[in-house]
Amino acid sequence: MEFSSKLLEKAVNEMAQLPGIGKRTALRLVLHLLKQPKEQTGFLAQSLLTMREEIRFCKSCHNISDVAICEICSNHNRNHKIVCVVEDVRDVMAIENTGQFRGIYHVLGGKISPIDGVGPSQLNITSLVEKVKSGDVFEIIFALSSTMEGDTTNFYIYKQIKDCEIITSSIARGISVGDELEYADEVTLGRSILNRIPFENSFKNN
Amino acid sequence: MEFSSKLLEKAVNEMAQLPGIGKRTALRLVLHLLKQPKEQTGFLAQSLLTMREEIRFCKSCHNISDVAICEICSNHNRNHKIVCVVEDVRDVMAIENTGQFRGIYHVLGGKISPIDGVGPSQLNITSLVEKVKSGDVFEIIFALSSTMEGDTTNFYIYKQIKDCEIITSSIARGISVGDELEYADEVTLGRSILNRIPFENSFKNN
Ligand SMILES: [Zn+2]
Ligand SMILES: [Zn+2]
Repeated sequence: MEFSSKLLEKAVNEMAQLPGIGKRTALRLVLHLLKQPKEQTGFLAQSLLTMREEIRFCKSCHNISDVAICEICSNHNRNHKIVCVVEDVRDVMAIENTGQFRGIYHVLGGKISPIDGVGPSQLNITSLVEKVKSGDVFEIIFALSSTMEGDTTNFYIYKQIKDCEIITSSIARGISVGDELEYADEVTLGRSILNRIPFENSFKNN
Repeated sequence: MEFSSKLLEKAVNEMAQLPGIGKRTALRLVLHLLKQPKEQTGFLAQSLLTMREEIRFCKSCHNISDVAICEICSNHNRNHKIVCVVEDVRDVMAIENTGQFRGIYHVLGGKISPIDGVGPSQLNITSLVEKVKSGDVFEIIFALSSTMEGDTTNFYIYKQIKDCEIITSSIARGISVGDELEYADEVTLGRSILNRIPFENSFKNN
């Protein structure tokens, strides 16, 4: 791409560093900002800078939080003995959205992925193992995505806590509620048969 | 979406103001920035602010330019009597990329679109009409997209310059080079038959 302006080119190139944003999309976004009042660009830039500078992570669960201990961890109506292990804040948001979980979380900040250069030491694993070994935990629920990286991470953590007297569980995988069997992928369908549950449990929460 | 941090929420909401960026995508982009060094967010924010504050438009053709008269308008090897009318800088870039045009441009900055609240006075139309009436122009080539807004804009300009002694033309619409007829949409195929050209012209530039 040949730009008629270095300022335009620089803005497009920075925007195109974002994942999934190609140069054409970046140019479209930047030209949009040029047509809007200057304030909009100001608000966008300032909100990104402030967030990047001032964002904090909960000292207990490592979720993004504006205070030292997040709202979930400081809520005494939640069961602090049941810890759901997730990858990032999006998973916390998704699970909170269901209204079905009343325990607390532990946010790893990613998955073990040698190909992306992410090893166990870059994730919040040590603090989880310590929490379990301190005896305060009754159950650990693994809720990472079921990819090779997710399974590797689950197993890495499992090996370090398996001798502790706790329950370890994994969220159920199966056919989405309301989905037709014939359209499900076969791995999911297979798992949903292997992990079948007592029939009376299947309508418990409805 | 329920956020665990106001800083995160604000950044996501500002990002989601951009066209085609929903809240989920905005969250993904913002979380990516959190994983990168702080400098990356700094560079992005600064490049957007600088661009929005300092960008200039060529005094002659209204294209985005870092100098008062853009490189194309100040190039004496180009034919300043042939003016190609386009919507924005992306069209200039696309046409320049073909290497087939040696005239100059006139960038309108949009199309007449009552539904979006864009009237003729918000576009760079007056300066184009003045340029034509000054007698310096030999040919005007309309290269707006062939939508209702594009046609309306072309016709609005055409009415004001049709009594001047100039040639007006429109870029050819037709089947893309290399495309199979059966896959072309019928409007395009219809136009390509109506606007057929002498056979000897069809291989002139090859
Ligand atoms: Zn917390
Ligand atoms: Zn110019």
